[in-house]
Amino acid sequence: MTASVGSRSSGVLDGIRIVDFSRVFAAPAATQILGDLGADVIKIEEPTRGDEARYFGVSETTNATPGMSPSFVSLNRNKRSVALDLTTAAGRQAARKISAQADVVVHNFRLGAMEKWGLAYSDLKAINPRLIYCEFYAYGHEGPLRHLGANDLALQAHSGLMSITGSEDGLPARSGSAVVDLHAGTALAAAVLAALFHRERTGEGQFVETSLLRSSAHLMGYFYTEYWADGTVRKAMGTANHLSVPNQLFPTADGSVVIIAPSDQMWQRCARALDAARLDRPEFAAASDRRRLRSQVVDEISAVTRKLTSEEVHSRLAAVKVNVAKVNSVAEAADDPQLLANAGVVEMDIKGRQWKSVAMPFALASMPTAICRPPQAIGESTEEVLGDFGFQPSEIAALRAAGAFGSPAKP
Amino acid sequence: MTASVGSRSSGVLDGIRIVDFSRVFAAPAATQILGDLGADVIKIEEPTRGDEARYFGVSETTNATPGMSPSFVSLNRNKRSVALDLTTAAGRQAARKISAQADVVVHNFRLGAMEKWGLAYSDLKAINPRLIYCEFYAYGHEGPLRHLGANDLALQAHSGLMSITGSEDGLPARSGSAVVDLHAGTALAAAVLAALFHRERTGEGQFVETSLLRSSAHLMGYFYTEYWADGTVRKAMGTANHLSVPNQLFPTADGSVVIIAPSDQMWQRCARALDAARLDRPEFAAASDRRRLRSQVVDEISAVTRKLTSEEVHSRLAAVKVNVAKVNSVAEAADDPQLLANAGVVEMDIKGRQWKSVAMPFALASMPTAICRPPQAIGESTEEVLGDFGFQPSEIAALRAAGAFGSPAKP
Repeated sequence: MTASVGSRSSGVLDGIRIVDFSRVFAAPAATQILGDLGADVIKIEEPTRGDEARYFGVSETTNATPGMSPSFVSLNRNKRSVALDLTTAAGRQAARKISAQADVVVHNFRLGAMEKWGLAYSDLKAINPRLIYCEFYAYGHEGPLRHLGANDLALQAHSGLMSITGSEDGLPARSGSAVVDLHAGTALAAAVLAALFHRERTGEGQFVETSLLRSSAHLMGYFYTEYWADGTVRKAMGTANHLSVPNQLFPTADGSVVIIAPSDQMWQRCARALDAARLDRPEFAAASDRRRLRSQVVDEISAVTRKLTSEEVHSRLAAVKVNVAKVNSVAEAADDPQLLANAGVVEMDIKGRQWKSVAMPFALASMPTAICRPPQAIGESTEEVLGDFGFQPSEIAALRAAGAFGSPAKP
Repeated sequence: MTASVGSRSSGVLDGIRIVDFSRVFAAPAATQILGDLGADVIKIEEPTRGDEARYFGVSETTNATPGMSPSFVSLNRNKRSVALDLTTAAGRQAARKISAQADVVVHNFRLGAMEKWGLAYSDLKAINPRLIYCEFYAYGHEGPLRHLGANDLALQAHSGLMSITGSEDGLPARSGSAVVDLHAGTALAAAVLAALFHRERTGEGQFVETSLLRSSAHLMGYFYTEYWADGTVRKAMGTANHLSVPNQLFPTADGSVVIIAPSDQMWQRCARALDAARLDRPEFAAASDRRRLRSQVVDEISAVTRKLTSEEVHSRLAAVKVNVAKVNSVAEAADDPQLLANAGVVEMDIKGRQWKSVAMPFALASMPTAICRPPQAIGESTEEVLGDFGFQPSEIAALRAAGAFGSPAKP
């Protein structure tokens, strides 16, 4: 699946230059999608440590390539790294000159930082009116919490997602992965694409805004709408939910499966495929009765599934078009052939080591090949990018001497 | 926030016609975003029951407006409903004539259904070469599971997300909301926008593919990459995670908060703001030590937070730029002023009843006003849409007589 830089010309965003000041998870996830689509993503990094995510969760065994944590690798392909110290006047000057030639600027600094550095939308719009400028704040740029930083977990808590996740009678749980971050990243990618489409038709750049707040609320939308409509406040229900029965995890002889049969027709097929005598009973036939007799229905199904392997339950129910899935571990899920069969895995060589990563969450027929530039070291493309953006060798030398690429100045 | 249909002309996707055969959650979430952006979304519904989500989770009290469940309302604004029975020749003929004039077609039927009805990409491309055609299958269109239907929970299980969600020693839990569905919907919206941009530059339509499989894998990407890199298989850790300590829920005198202080600097500020004597100790100073002494660090922090209100913990930590958030209920989250302040709430009048819903997960400055056509009843715009797509009154009458709009034929 590894493709050379040369295949970039087939990208949908070929020729689009994105200057990406963002770090950690959400906004880098957005720019990776745009890079996967062929955009030239310039990742501006603080010269000493770079993106903090380079070291997230790194242990001695995963640290074989320093600065290449699994989370960094999974979110930073198809980007060229430029080291710039924005606390120096020279670094800011270089950032402004690059941004002046960009199609898109993305940042996720706290409110006020880009303004302080002369990199606010108003500054850049004046020199680059076609620019699409994307701000990504934790809680948005209005309201009492606008100055507050936050991360995925904070918004899982703030949004109420944590309050509906976990066991019925225990403590709340987090959604195991950074779902708010990654959802926000995909939303930001969509926002940039919408703004690019608008610019293609009208010639106009614009200001784009997204936040973890908006993303988390979007994930919670139907719960908020229900609450606003009639005051219902849902709580955690383990793997079950309030919509239908069965709709949850069931134990099997060798693991567990989820079974979802919301309609009465699907329930009847489910009951007959598993154990007609035990399950296909008149008192369980109607969805409202199954909800009323929830614990009894769950117990009866469990008594049947416990005696069968996951594979057996899966094949019986899939054959009669009942929704069923094995509860996979991370290992089983990652190695499942289905993902590979659908071109969902990207392979990369990073400094001589092979890595695998997940592809972007959609595919376009006009781009049959994964476009893949491996994640880079901090500042790996500094000189190349500056050259591409019209900096002369003498200018680059002057920037270096002034500490723009970090201090102490390297030879 | 309610805006009239007249404001549609300011939409980024003004003039783009989307024929949407999709139902339930993921793909309707995508077309709502495109409708919010100004596209004319034509929702094709089965005439008798319509979209199954119209009745999801509806109880007697929430059923005041039949067919308007909270989940349907939250995902189906800015669409015009057309009732078509695709099991009739007349219904299929009407669908083809509409699709022939569309910019985008979206469907999430199982593999083979659209082919059977003569609505496959190959059929429509022949009459509409600029068409963008989007297929949304549960497990993608290749591989051993391609014929299998599924829903959000099935992919939470299949992807491994469920295996890393829940308490450390208990059963797995689901992420409380349909995060795979909604993430997939946003990815599909991004895919359509990318294809529209490509068509604007090249004139070429194309085939677009996404799936719950791709979406769930994208949410799990950094876990897969870690596993592929060194074999690590993460498990559920309640509200904690493996990346850093503290990074989880802590009890307070009146509820709970999450506190996240991954870096040593942030931890020092956190420790001093909460209880310097108890927490700002040399053995807790380094991130690796805090991970090693996880349970001790958590116990010590908990002993402090238990004596303070959530508000007090929040204000002390926010003041020193430590990530902190209250663990809100659905009610507290929905009514939090921050969302409203950031234009995150959309108000609508549906048949005389006021509803509130969550806005799309990003904002574009060129579209300052929420564009909002309330969710419609099944077939509410059938005649209007057919007229817009060039059907003559006599044709509409003939389609009706042939059962295209459902049977028994209405007068």
